[in-house]
Amino acid sequence: MIRAVLLDLLGVVYDGDTQIAGAVAAVEHLRKAGLPLRFVSNTTRSPRDRILAQLAALGVRVKDEELLTPARAAVEWLRRHGRQPHLLVHPDLKAEFSGLDGGNGRAVVVGDAGDAFDHASLNRVFRELVAGADFLALATNRTFKDADGLLSLDAGAFVAALEFASGRSPVVLGKPSPDFFLSALAGLNCPAADAVMVGDDAESDVAGALRAGLGAALLVRTGKYRPGDETRFDPAPTALVDDLAAATDWILSRAAA
Amino acid sequence: MIRAVLLDLLGVVYDGDTQIAGAVAAVEHLRKAGLPLRFVSNTTRSPRDRILAQLAALGVRVKDEELLTPARAAVEWLRRHGRQPHLLVHPDLKAEFSGLDGGNGRAVVVGDAGDAFDHASLNRVFRELVAGADFLALATNRTFKDADGLLSLDAGAFVAALEFASGRSPVVLGKPSPDFFLSALAGLNCPAADAVMVGDDAESDVAGALRAGLGAALLVRTGKYRPGDETRFDPAPTALVDDLAAATDWILSRAAA
Repeated sequence: MIRAVLLDLLGVVYDGDTQIAGAVAAVEHLRKAGLPLRFVSNTTRSPRDRILAQLAALGVRVKDEELLTPARAAVEWLRRHGRQPHLLVHPDLKAEFSGLDGGNGRAVVVGDAGDAFDHASLNRVFRELVAGADFLALATNRTFKDADGLLSLDAGAFVAALEFASGRSPVVLGKPSPDFFLSALAGLNCPAADAVMVGDDAESDVAGALRAGLGAALLVRTGKYRPGDETRFDPAPTALVDDLAAATDWILSRAAA
Repeated sequence: MIRAVLLDLLGVVYDGDTQIAGAVAAVEHLRKAGLPLRFVSNTTRSPRDRILAQLAALGVRVKDEELLTPARAAVEWLRRHGRQPHLLVHPDLKAEFSGLDGGNGRAVVVGDAGDAFDHASLNRVFRELVAGADFLALATNRTFKDADGLLSLDAGAFVAALEFASGRSPVVLGKPSPDFFLSALAGLNCPAADAVMVGDDAESDVAGALRAGLGAALLVRTGKYRPGDETRFDPAPTALVDDLAAATDWILSRAAA
């Protein structure tokens, strides 16, 4: 029985400024069925308010507490551990980390910095790691579908570079960290085994959710999906479906009444 | 019995523009003992003629055929396979790849591009890999000792980023590729088991040489060496010595008369 639904955003609900066909209506169907929803995005280029505005513009009503981002998880981690961040993130994301300057130690925070990834910035972060700073990765996605429709390097590539050179392993804040999926379910009074995740990333969304103990994870053929992705990572998706509309049919046929 | 000696350069013979104390005299001792020498450098920021000029300025006579660089190995690979290079290397190194434009396929070549590593350049190379280009890495070193005395990110970090995102594994041209060590010995009429390597990189120089079948590999405490490096990689060095002068004593006491 499915009692809660986690949805990825980019490549599942929208692609750039437009919805993926049928996605907005699909979200409405899930809401009308009474299923609690959480939106779990690994996009680390956009601040929360822009994501919420983008969803509103598409006609998807999302409350602040329904959106989970790695940046928010990182801010909570930094507060809990009393660390001052050294940010290697997209310039648009920096404001979300304001007011954390009083920590008693340092933590490097790496997101998809886009054009802000250059040799000097990466090297400064590398040297912080060598000097003992904590290492936080907002995401470890390998690729994302860029504005031109082709795959581009995502944060995970740069995290891998720093990991290789420093010999340090990051604390991963976003997907596929089990903590991220489980914190999305917190407050829903729903065991992980009764929740389903829908995403276009067979590794980060799908295998990650299943490893976190979710009962099901659906891979959509939209967004960054490439043929064969469904067999590329372990565990494999519970089902491969065309898009969020098809995922919704799958979910509603298995949902708690 | 030692019959041939392979020497790393940066961190073993010189550091910036100055010799490492006693290194020039040590090279002379090895020459006077009649041991054939090869200089095997993974530095992929400097063209061959600059490396040779730098050695000459320090008073180390090195013939062209005694210097092996990953760039030369890469040019040979590209010629042999008929590939046109897409270079992500230091600007100073580009001239060594001239005249290779007529290939029947493409190969990405990644070296330590320094400040030329930026998001756009890395992403172009990533997309070439996704499109099927061959993947050549001039080196996979994690770090090097920079001009300010601190460790900086070396080519290996960026190779790791591309490998992670593309799922492709590179052909490694420089150390620790066994082919690179063995091609350095080619023409010396010396079995690998009778050769010794001296380096400051416990992984790339030392473990790499031993994996290639060399009889011995000495780790020096100069250059990028950090305490504990001698136990960090497998196989461990045959011996840990203070510097090239001490390595030379070690070698001469075991050399063929």
